[in-house]
Amino acid sequence: MADDQSKIERIAKTIKSFPDFPKPGILFKDIFPLLHDPAVFSDLVDVMTNNVRQLNVDVVIGLDARGFLFGPIIAYQLNIPFVPIRKKGKLPGPTMAVEYKLEYGSDIFEAQLQSIKEGQRVVIVDDLLATGGTMSAACELVEKMKGNIVECLVIIELNDLNGRSKITGKVHSLVQC
Amino acid sequence: MADDQSKIERIAKTIKSFPDFPKPGILFKDIFPLLHDPAVFSDLVDVMTNNVRQLNVDVVIGLDARGFLFGPIIAYQLNIPFVPIRKKGKLPGPTMAVEYKLEYGSDIFEAQLQSIKEGQRVVIVDDLLATGGTMSAACELVEKMKGNIVECLVIIELNDLNGRSKITGKVHSLVQC
Repeated sequence: MADDQSKIERIAKTIKSFPDFPKPGILFKDIFPLLHDPAVFSDLVDVMTNNVRQLNVDVVIGLDARGFLFGPIIAYQLNIPFVPIRKKGKLPGPTMAVEYKLEYGSDIFEAQLQSIKEGQRVVIVDDLLATGGTMSAACELVEKMKGNIVECLVIIELNDLNGRSKITGKVHSLVQC
Repeated sequence: MADDQSKIERIAKTIKSFPDFPKPGILFKDIFPLLHDPAVFSDLVDVMTNNVRQLNVDVVIGLDARGFLFGPIIAYQLNIPFVPIRKKGKLPGPTMAVEYKLEYGSDIFEAQLQSIKEGQRVVIVDDLLATGGTMSAACELVEKMKGNIVECLVIIELNDLNGRSKITGKVHSLVQC
């Protein structure tokens, strides 16, 4: 764990902040520098995989699009399935859907039917927990499919926005800011 | 290579086809079943990584969103950077952009400045080559950044649409249909 702690410190230092992106007042956290540096990306994969290994989950779920960067590699390392949650209309075949509110208007998340089976232990992976809107919608969708959410795992949590309060289950973040 | 061939056959069998998705006349190829089956996903990662290893590239580039599922894992295995190409407005900081035509209207691809450096050998990864519109736009962007495109690597190539003719460089597809 001491080893994980030094890796997390390197991860935290590598994340870049961009004020007023994509619009004024937003401090954007850019996780792509983590993927530009193979040593730091290897640290990140290690820390995330070690964390998920201990959860004994059956499935890794990733949110489109930045959850796609990390979810498959964790699933690969642990030899378990990866399942995507995407915006409406992106996944073929029968799907289950939930609608969720945005600042203005609403959006719909979908998962393919049978991609999550009743009682399966799942971890939901994304890059960032901000207001918690998308993560809570993902949780609602997984619960509707009768999956058992063991953890919501993100790299960065923006403490001030208190997204954690919207999530009923366990939230784990590597870096808080 | 004989071993790779049997893996590719398993990969081809696992891809699902959905007629008339997302609209009438389109035969949609769904690559997510490859990620639902850990043994097949492991085959896929092996085949893609072995292929890219031989290219001696400096960078793996992935196209948003489905290129994000495969690009990072290849980059991780080969200990080289992963760089994203995304639609306009998704990447913070200074970017380079190209506009490209869609069936109706146009769209813009961006990459972060300095994410690809002059003369770097790159492979561009995506799930599917259809008409070749997005892949040729990605190539144009990489060339504008003076990257050296060694290969465009996709899992599936739809032969009838002849997307390959739009790409000046080498195209490598695992499965043709």
